Amino acid sequence: MQEKTIPYKIYLEEEEMPKAWYNLRADMINKPAPLLNPATKQPMTAEDLAPVFCDELIAQELDETTPFIPIPDEIREFYKMYRPSPLVRAYCLEKKLQTPAKIYYKFEGNNTSGSHKLNSAIAQAYYAKKQGLKGVTTETGAGQWGTALSMACSYFDLDCKVYMVKVSYEQKPFRREVMRTYGASVVPSPSETTEIGKKILADHPGTTGSLGCAISEAVEVATKNPGYRYVLGSVLNQVMLHQSVIGLETKTALDKYGIKPDIIIGCAGGGSNLGGLIAPFMGEKIKGNADYRIIAVEPASCPSFTRGTYAYDFCDTGMICPLAKMYTLGSGFIPSPNHAGGLRFHGMSSTLSQLYDDKLMEAVSVEQTEVFEAAEQFARVEGILPAPESSHAIKVAIDEAMKCKETGEEKTIVFGLTGTGYFDMFAYERFNDGKMTDYIPTDEEIAASIATLPQI
Amino acid sequence: MQEKTIPYKIYLEEEEMPKAWYNLRADMINKPAPLLNPATKQPMTAEDLAPVFCDELIAQELDETTPFIPIPDEIREFYKMYRPSPLVRAYCLEKKLQTPAKIYYKFEGNNTSGSHKLNSAIAQAYYAKKQGLKGVTTETGAGQWGTALSMACSYFDLDCKVYMVKVSYEQKPFRREVMRTYGASVVPSPSETTEIGKKILADHPGTTGSLGCAISEAVEVATKNPGYRYVLGSVLNQVMLHQSVIGLETKTALDKYGIKPDIIIGCAGGGSNLGGLIAPFMGEKIKGNADYRIIAVEPASCPSFTRGTYAYDFCDTGMICPLAKMYTLGSGFIPSPNHAGGLRFHGMSSTLSQLYDDKLMEAVSVEQTEVFEAAEQFARVEGILPAPESSHAIKVAIDEAMKCKETGEEKTIVFGLTGTGYFDMFAYERFNDGKMTDYIPTDEEIAASIATLPQI
Repeated sequence: MQEKTIPYKIYLEEEEMPKAWYNLRADMINKPAPLLNPATKQPMTAEDLAPVFCDELIAQELDETTPFIPIPDEIREFYKMYRPSPLVRAYCLEKKLQTPAKIYYKFEGNNTSGSHKLNSAIAQAYYAKKQGLKGVTTETGAGQWGTALSMACSYFDLDCKVYMVKVSYEQKPFRREVMRTYGASVVPSPSETTEIGKKILADHPGTTGSLGCAISEAVEVATKNPGYRYVLGSVLNQVMLHQSVIGLETKTALDKYGIKPDIIIGCAGGGSNLGGLIAPFMGEKIKGNADYRIIAVEPASCPSFTRGTYAYDFCDTGMICPLAKMYTLGSGFIPSPNHAGGLRFHGMSSTLSQLYDDKLMEAVSVEQTEVFEAAEQFARVEGILPAPESSHAIKVAIDEAMKCKETGEEKTIVFGLTGTGYFDMFAYERFNDGKMTDYIPTDEEIAASIATLPQI
Repeated sequence: MQEKTIPYKIYLEEEEMPKAWYNLRADMINKPAPLLNPATKQPMTAEDLAPVFCDELIAQELDETTPFIPIPDEIREFYKMYRPSPLVRAYCLEKKLQTPAKIYYKFEGNNTSGSHKLNSAIAQAYYAKKQGLKGVTTETGAGQWGTALSMACSYFDLDCKVYMVKVSYEQKPFRREVMRTYGASVVPSPSETTEIGKKILADHPGTTGSLGCAISEAVEVATKNPGYRYVLGSVLNQVMLHQSVIGLETKTALDKYGIKPDIIIGCAGGGSNLGGLIAPFMGEKIKGNADYRIIAVEPASCPSFTRGTYAYDFCDTGMICPLAKMYTLGSGFIPSPNHAGGLRFHGMSSTLSQLYDDKLMEAVSVEQTEVFEAAEQFARVEGILPAPESSHAIKVAIDEAMKCKETGEEKTIVFGLTGTGYFDMFAYERFNDGKMTDYIPTDEEIAASIATLPQI
C-alpha cells in the first residue's frame, strides 16, 4: 500500500477491536517467577490470594498457559465508549525534526481518566461485580488509577473506596474531585478509618502519607469488610493481560496498512502500559517470526531496570503484599520528591523483568528536564499536551528519530502515548519557570536500599 | 440501514472531512444586521476594520453572499491532527434514562484546548501568518479561547499575547500554564503594559480585572504595534463560519447512516458552538428542505435570548468595539460571580439573534445546579467529564429524552458536547460538596441594564 494513503489518525472499526486479551506469558519460554507468600516464602496459591483479590482475577493472575482470554461482552461494550484509541502518524513531529524516520504513537489519553489505566480498571470492576461483591478498595498517588477505577465502578454501580496519599489529596484537589464526581469515596491516607492508619498517625503525627501506607489501608479495608476486595492498577500479570488491548489494537492498525515497526518504545513505572503495548510484538519476537527493538524508558531518578537488581522483593513499602521477583531498587527506595510525574515505583512487573533479563528488550533512563523539553516540543507540533510519564517515551522516540536523521535510515518508530498532562500543570509551571531540576540517586544510595532486600 | 449497525462512535474518514466552510448568512432571507462604527453609527467598512483585524478575516466577516468558502489546505492539515471529531451515540445514557429517544452528541473536547475553540483559532492564526504578521493579541477569561489560540500560534510560529483577566490568571493557573507551554505570553489584566491598563490601575488600585478591560488592552496592543492584529473567539460572523465544520461533519456522519435528527441542541454564550453546529441544518430549514427543532440553551444567570432585548449594543463592556445588533442584556450586565462556567456574555451572535427573531430556533434557560446534576449523570454513564458550558446542552437533551419516555416517541436528539471539564474542577468540587447555588437576575436588574443601551 502507498504511504500517501496513511491518515494522520488510524481508527479501527468497532468490529476490528480485540475480542480476546493476549496472555504473553503463555508464549514465554522462561516464565516470570511466581509470587511468593511473604510468610511461607512458597508460591502464592489461589487460596492464599482469595481474601484479597477477586476469584476470576486470581485465575488470570496465575494462568501462564492460555494464550488468549476472551474479553467479556460487558467489558467490550465499555471499551467502545472510548476505544479503539487512535494510532497517530506524527507527521508534524517528523517534519519539525526533519527526520526520515516514520513516527507513530498509540494515544491512550482520550478518556476522562486521562490514561490507559481505564483498560484494566473496567475489567477488574467487571469481575468484582460478577462475583457479587459490594465494592473494591485501592490506593492512589497522583490519582490516575483512582480516577480510572472510580469511572469503572460508577459504570457497574460498585462501591469504590480510594485511599489517596494525603499530600496528593491536599495538593491535587482536581483529580480528587473527578473521583468524587464519579461517586468514589476518597480518603486521605493515613486515616482514622483503619487500624494501620491509626497506628501510623499515632507514631508519626502530621505525616503526609506514602503509597505504601495507602496500600496497607486499602488492603485492610478489603479484607475486613465482607463483600470487598482490593484491586491494583499496575505490576500484576492480570493488569498486563488487560492492557494487551493497547498492543493488539496497535498491531491490527499497523497490519492494516502494511507497516512493520523497527523500534517500539514505552515508558515504564510498574510496567502496565509497556507490557500491554509490546505484548503481541514480543510474542512474535519470541516465536522468531519478527524482530523488533523494544525499549523501556524509565526516569533517571527511579532506574529499576538500568540500575536495579533482579531479585525477590516486596511490591509495597509496607511489606504486606506478596513477594515478586523483579528488577528492583529495594522496597525502601524513595525517589526524589522533586520528580514530577509517575513512574516512581521501586520495582517492575515480573513479566517485563524476565523479558529484560532474557535480553529480549532494552532499557534506558532519562532525566526529567530533558523529558519536559521533549514534551513541550511534542505539544507544540502535535497538539497534545502529554503526561510527564508518557513524555519519557517521547524523549527516546525523538532521540531515535534524530539518529535516523544522522544515518539517513527510514526506520519506523512506534511509541506509547499513555496519557495527557492536564492534571500535571504544576510540573509544567516549574518547567516553564526554568525551575525544574534533575536528581540522580548515587550508587551508595541504591546499594544501601538494595542491601535491605529480603533473603529468599 | 439497520440501527444495529450504528457504532458507539461515528468517525468520518479524512477524505470525508469538509473542504469548505458553510456561510449560513448566504442562505438567510433576513440577513443579520451589520456591525456599526461606534463613532459614526454607520456600517463598518473593511477599511474601518483593517487596523484591528486581519484582511482575509475582514472579508469573511463582511461576506454575506458566498455560501461555501474553501478551507485552505494548511488549515485542513491542522484539522486532521484532532478532527474529525466523533459523533457519539449515547447508548449508555439512553439505557440509563430508559428512553425510546435516540441521543447523539458531537464531541469537540478531544484536543488539548479542551473545546471547539480550536476550529476558529487555527483559521485566524493561519490568515494572520499569511498576511505576514508578527503576531496576534487577544483576551481570555477562563482560558479556553486563549489556550486554543496559543496552540494555533505555536503551530504557525506566530507571537501570541494573551490578556487574561487577573482573577482568572491567579485562580486558574493550570490554563495559564498550558498557554505558556505553547509559548504564549500571558499577561494579567489590567496591566502596566498598556495605557488603558495603567489608567484602570490608577483609578481602581487592587482591581481583579474584567473581560471588558482585557479586550481593551488586547485591542490597544494590536493597533499600536506594527505587525499585530486582534483576534476574537466568538460572536463574530467569521467565527460562526469556521465553526461550521462542527455542523458539516455532524451532518455527513448522520447522512452516512441515514439518520434524520428531530431536535438539535447546543449551549449558547456568544454563539460560536451553536452557530457552527446548526449551520447546515438551519440552511436546509430555511430552504424548506427539512424541519428541525433547534434549541439554544443559556444559563438562567445570563439569559440573553430568553430575557434580553433585540437591539444594537456594544460587544464589550469597555464600549470600544463595533456595535452589533443582537439579543442583549446590556453591555453593563455582569452575571453573578457564583456562576461556574462560561456562557457569561451579555449578548449573542448577530446571526443567531436574527434567526431567533425570525422564530427559526427556540431558546431555554437552565439553572446551574440542575446543569451539574445532568453533568454528573452524563459523566457516570458516558465516561466523559463535560465542561459546565456543554452541560447546559446535556441538561436539555436529557429533558427532551425524558419527554419522549412519557410520550413513547422515538425522537432523534443531537446535541453539541463542546468540551471537557478538566479545568473546572473547583466548580465540580462546589457541586460535590453540596455548596452550589443558583442565581437568577431580577426583572429590575435586567431592566436597569437594558436601559443603558446606546441610542441608535
